[in-house]
Amino acid sequence: MEPHRLTATEALQLIQSNTLTVESYARALLSRIESRDPAVKAWVHLNPDAVLQQARLLDQIPVAQRGPLHGIPVAVKDVIYTKDMPTQHNSPLYKDSHVAVDAAVVASLRAAGALIFGKTTTTEFAAMVVGPATRNPHSISNSSATDSAGIRTPGGSSSGSAAAVADFQIPIALGTQTGGSTVRPGSFNGVYGFKPTWNAVSREGCKVYAITLDTVGYFARGVGDLRLLGRVLGVDDYGFDDKGRFKGLEGARIGVVKSPAWDSAGNGTVDALERGKVLLEKHGAVVEEVQLPAEFDKLPDWHVKIMAAEGRVNFLSEYRKDKTQIHPELSAAVENVSGLTRVKELEAFDGVAMLRPRIDEIANRYDALLTPSVPDEAPLGLGSTGSAVFNRIWTALHVPVVTVPGFGGENGMPIGLTLVAARYHDQHLLNVAEAVGKVFEEEGGWKSSL
Amino acid sequence: MEPHRLTATEALQLIQSNTLTVESYARALLSRIESRDPAVKAWVHLNPDAVLQQARLLDQIPVAQRGPLHGIPVAVKDVIYTKDMPTQHNSPLYKDSHVAVDAAVVASLRAAGALIFGKTTTTEFAAMVVGPATRNPHSISNSSATDSAGIRTPGGSSSGSAAAVADFQIPIALGTQTGGSTVRPGSFNGVYGFKPTWNAVSREGCKVYAITLDTVGYFARGVGDLRLLGRVLGVDDYGFDDKGRFKGLEGARIGVVKSPAWDSAGNGTVDALERGKVLLEKHGAVVEEVQLPAEFDKLPDWHVKIMAAEGRVNFLSEYRKDKTQIHPELSAAVENVSGLTRVKELEAFDGVAMLRPRIDEIANRYDALLTPSVPDEAPLGLGSTGSAVFNRIWTALHVPVVTVPGFGGENGMPIGLTLVAARYHDQHLLNVAEAVGKVFEEEGGWKSSL
Repeated sequence: MEPHRLTATEALQLIQSNTLTVESYARALLSRIESRDPAVKAWVHLNPDAVLQQARLLDQIPVAQRGPLHGIPVAVKDVIYTKDMPTQHNSPLYKDSHVAVDAAVVASLRAAGALIFGKTTTTEFAAMVVGPATRNPHSISNSSATDSAGIRTPGGSSSGSAAAVADFQIPIALGTQTGGSTVRPGSFNGVYGFKPTWNAVSREGCKVYAITLDTVGYFARGVGDLRLLGRVLGVDDYGFDDKGRFKGLEGARIGVVKSPAWDSAGNGTVDALERGKVLLEKHGAVVEEVQLPAEFDKLPDWHVKIMAAEGRVNFLSEYRKDKTQIHPELSAAVENVSGLTRVKELEAFDGVAMLRPRIDEIANRYDALLTPSVPDEAPLGLGSTGSAVFNRIWTALHVPVVTVPGFGGENGMPIGLTLVAARYHDQHLLNVAEAVGKVFEEEGGWKSSL
Repeated sequence: MEPHRLTATEALQLIQSNTLTVESYARALLSRIESRDPAVKAWVHLNPDAVLQQARLLDQIPVAQRGPLHGIPVAVKDVIYTKDMPTQHNSPLYKDSHVAVDAAVVASLRAAGALIFGKTTTTEFAAMVVGPATRNPHSISNSSATDSAGIRTPGGSSSGSAAAVADFQIPIALGTQTGGSTVRPGSFNGVYGFKPTWNAVSREGCKVYAITLDTVGYFARGVGDLRLLGRVLGVDDYGFDDKGRFKGLEGARIGVVKSPAWDSAGNGTVDALERGKVLLEKHGAVVEEVQLPAEFDKLPDWHVKIMAAEGRVNFLSEYRKDKTQIHPELSAAVENVSGLTRVKELEAFDGVAMLRPRIDEIANRYDALLTPSVPDEAPLGLGSTGSAVFNRIWTALHVPVVTVPGFGGENGMPIGLTLVAARYHDQHLLNVAEAVGKVFEEEGGWKSSL
């Protein structure tokens, strides 16, 4: 296999067995990037010489001293600090800004031997829906699109991370999620996008948007890679007796949640959810529809209010520096033009807090919940990275979610479905996702042509 | 008055009326620091030339373009990023580390014209109780101590910030609080220490210890200065009809909460709380004792569990970098030697969340709650910055708290009392604190001899 097509898990084995050097692996990815990225535009900072220098240093490390991610290239969303690269947040206020520390996640990956490759594009502060220049690699232009309509968004806000993984430019990429910024681009690009339980992974050194929602997420082309990263980042279920809980799809219980946003589902997602259900049943799972209790209907509104209230706090300093240099929606949030009061803010904050143990209880009746990732295929154009309507309630509830690829829409673009588990059942969720992903990828009907 | 004795509010008036230049004000503080700080040791980074250069630049700004904090010197705890100074977290892992961005609070203050003066000492990562070299300015040595026993801690973890404000080296200083890191040193040093409602102020660019607890706090020698800072940092009660709520001590309702930690109160605190009650009644307040419902008894234990669980997440990257370079207690937290499970963690997390609206309801029956700040006077020596036992429940509940000086202990050292209000009643709380502080400072029995 060409090295750029390897998953991280596969590459790690080849590196560990001295079949592949870190440098040659890095060169293969740089070559892929060179040929593809002029059209995809996933990277905002990439210095091939620095990458190769790092790679050579890694190759010199004696085998006994190598870390668990030795030589694995990781792309970093450009709202996450990297000590050796700029962090610009897609904001003119941070043009060429270079913070000389690593975010906690980057530091942990680097300490484990990862090759921090470069910075991938984001919407402004991972808070806006106006896309960066990045194109969905499955539809980069009229000539290469599977449909005739041309350029589509990769989704956002973790636009470049999802696109680069989908396009075989990198095996693993870091993103973040406050609404749907990991799951949505994961779905739009046909890759796995995982948002662990809120607070399972340190957010230090990531741009803050909404502190009770922001979560570090990551993208890969296989569940094994998500697990690999999680071990280094401390994503574990200690104390929950989860190891033997999921024994495969035969007899597994899956709850289908159409969610309060079901009205937003287009044909692609309606079909994917139906097909997913049928496939799981075919493989022996017991699938039933779950109606969330009525109070969960308030969640979408509460999520919007929390984002607004917390965004007001966290963009204040940029507003004070120069309000003309931030998106008008952000300055409107800081000015609280919607007139949100502290009373409403606390109602949302406390209301969501009360529902978190309730969703755990519901989720624990099943091996996982299955729910839409997105309304439909990635929209046309780069003007909007799409809707987070199916993601925000889970983000607010702090539960781990992973979007699993395998389905396609009317224009041949990928559509994922989301699996959900109770808080801190992340490893359990990945066990389920591995079995489900195998079925969806093989029988869902969509395959990457990249 | 000598300029170094001015409050920020007083200094601002003199600067605005062209009676005092920023440079001459800065020179007065630098001179105070030069004479006093060799004994107090409040600063970890201070560059007088850079301070004076900044001051001269501020003096050159035309009056019409000056910000609301024009020329006001602010000290910054060394766990908060400053773009023009190192941020070292009292950790060998961050020796000489220099992050080229301001934390959100620093950026907002700078944009308002504040003179970012230097960095003040902290315990390691604001997480440990082993003191830095800083001494309590009221007891710096045998010769100058009011008691015979010698050096005492300024408290922590915001050690240098509280000491510098108490010692008239700076009018305002930033701190943080995860347990009692603002209120405790405020009390030990005889100054006001204010922890706003959690999440009212952006924590971006501050070292993360426990994300649901960490709060930016600040110190001053008068309530007016706390209000001044709050206006710039966005601490407001919008939507609560609080402006006319507190009409002075006559007829005010104050609830005294001995708290689940009352057994830890020494003579100094027992006397201060009794005296505070008598003084408030003398000035017309209706004071009654409030017994918190039984479930609040779990809060101290929950707070400890949340700190442990979240500390485990947030010190993982330092642990991965070099676990021999962090305090053994921190590596033990990362290794989870106490065997805390996710079940226990969620019980604490959800349990505290349920109590937050309940404490709001209780607090709103009064103008404020009055409760101890510390067990007693600052302990002898620098080995421990003292106990947060009276602070942690309020930090966990997210409510705003302010320690008010005025009382003294058996050795003549200051003891403060804490006022508490419901979440997002920060401005209301400061209104109460202003009236209460006037009485406590004038009639409490302790006065600074510095």
